[in-house]
Amino acid sequence: MTGNIDRRIEQLGIDLPALPAAVGAYLPCRTAGDLLFVSGQLPWIDGRIAWPGRVGAEVGLADAVAAARLCALALVAQVREACAGDLDRVAAVVRLGGFVSSASDFFDHAKVVNGASELMVEIFGDAGRHARAAVGCASLPLGAPVEIEGLFQIRP
Amino acid sequence: MTGNIDRRIEQLGIDLPALPAAVGAYLPCRTAGDLLFVSGQLPWIDGRIAWPGRVGAEVGLADAVAAARLCALALVAQVREACAGDLDRVAAVVRLGGFVSSASDFFDHAKVVNGASELMVEIFGDAGRHARAAVGCASLPLGAPVEIEGLFQIRP
Amino acid sequence: MTGNIDRRIEQLGIDLPALPAAVGAYLPCRTAGDLLFVSGQLPWIDGRIAWPGRVGAEVGLADAVAAARLCALALVAQVREACAGDLDRVAAVVRLGGFVSSASDFFDHAKVVNGASELMVEIFGDAGRHARAAVGCASLPLGAPVEIEGLFQIRP
Repeated sequence: MTGNIDRRIEQLGIDLPALPAAVGAYLPCRTAGDLLFVSGQLPWIDGRIAWPGRVGAEVGLADAVAAARLCALALVAQVREACAGDLDRVAAVVRLGGFVSSASDFFDHAKVVNGASELMVEIFGDAGRHARAAVGCASLPLGAPVEIEGLFQIRP
Repeated sequence: MTGNIDRRIEQLGIDLPALPAAVGAYLPCRTAGDLLFVSGQLPWIDGRIAWPGRVGAEVGLADAVAAARLCALALVAQVREACAGDLDRVAAVVRLGGFVSSASDFFDHAKVVNGASELMVEIFGDAGRHARAAVGCASLPLGAPVEIEGLFQIRP
Repeated sequence: MTGNIDRRIEQLGIDLPALPAAVGAYLPCRTAGDLLFVSGQLPWIDGRIAWPGRVGAEVGLADAVAAARLCALALVAQVREACAGDLDRVAAVVRLGGFVSSASDFFDHAKVVNGASELMVEIFGDAGRHARAAVGCASLPLGAPVEIEGLFQIRP
C-alpha cells in the first residue's frame, strides 16, 4: 500500500536519497510530543558533498539552489524513516533553518533556501508551507555549500 | 476596543511597521500547537534594508542595535497579524535567534541583539523575557546587518 | 538526597560550572509546555572565554572540542537550575544548535560539536541523544570559538 504523499513523490519523478550517514555523535531525528526535530542535512551525491565551496565565490546560484533541494530531499527521507515509512503522518512542515556557506558579498540566501522551501510545497502542498530563517555561514561541515535543518509536526 | 499590549505600544510611542513582504517561498509565521514560529525578519525602512553591511566593518554598533530593534518590531507586527490583531494573546516570547552580519573581529553580538531583546521586554513585560542565541554571520539576505527570528507562545 | 543523574555526573568526575552571567538582556532558560529552551552558552574558564579565536585559524581542533564540552557543561548547569536542582526531570535532550567560529577553510564542525553531543550522552545516556545543527560562524560573542544552545524535554 502506498500513501498519498508517496504517490505524489512518485508523480513528481522524485527519488528520495538513501539515508545519509550521521557525521557526528547525534541522531538524525528526535521527537518531543508531536514535534519532530530533524538534524541539519547536507547535499550528498554518490557519497560526496555536491558543489563544495562558498556560494558567491566557488559555487554559483543555480548549483546552490540545487544543493538546497538535495538537503530538503534528505530531510524528507529522514522524516519518512522516523514515521516508519508513512509520510502521510506529516501534519505540517513547521520550520526550516537554512544555512548557506557564503562569500561576504553574497546576499541571495533567500533564493538559495527557496530550493528547499519549494520542494516542501511540491511534496506536501499547503502543509509544506513553513516559517524559516536563512543566513550566511563562514563555512559548513565537509565544505558543503548549504545545510538545512527541519522541524515537522507529525500525526500519531 | 484596544488591548493592553496595544495600549502599551501606543504609550511607548512605537509604530509597528507595515508587514514586510516575504523574500522567498515560505510563510511569515507557522503555528504548531500553542507555539508560533516566526520567520527571520530583516530591518526594513521605507522599503529598503536599513544600514546594509557587516557590523564591525561598514556598520557601527549603534546602528546595528537600531537594526535589531527594527527586526523585533517586524516580529511583533507578524505576531499581531498571526493573532488576528490581538497581541494580548501572547503568553510568552520563548526564544529569539539573533544573526549578526559580522566582521571576523567583531565580538559584541550580545549588545546588538539586546536591541531586539529589550524591545520585547518593553512591550510584553516579564512575558517578553526569553531564551536566545546570538551569533555572527558571513553575510545575510539582501545585505542586512541583522536578522532575528522568533518563537512565541500564544493563548487560544 | 542525590538523584541518578547527579550520581552519574559525580562518577564521571565532572564538576558542573558555576552559572555563567548572562551577557545580554535575556534569560538563560525559558519554558514552553514541557520544552525548556536554553540560551546559547559560551566556554568559560575562570571568568574568561576559553581559547578565543576562529577554529582552523587561531584555535586548533582539540581545543575547540574542549570548548564545545565546556558549553555543554554550562547547558547542563542551566538546566539543573531551571529544574530546581533535579536533573532526573530531564526526559530528553531534544536538540543542540552548535555554532563554531570558523576560518573559511575549516570543515570539521561536526567533530567540534561532538564535544558537546558526547557529553550529553555520557550524562543522560540514551535520553541524551539529540538532533542537532552544526555550522560555521564569522565570529561569536566575546571572541568565543564555540557557542551551543539547547532544547530539552522536562518532566513535571
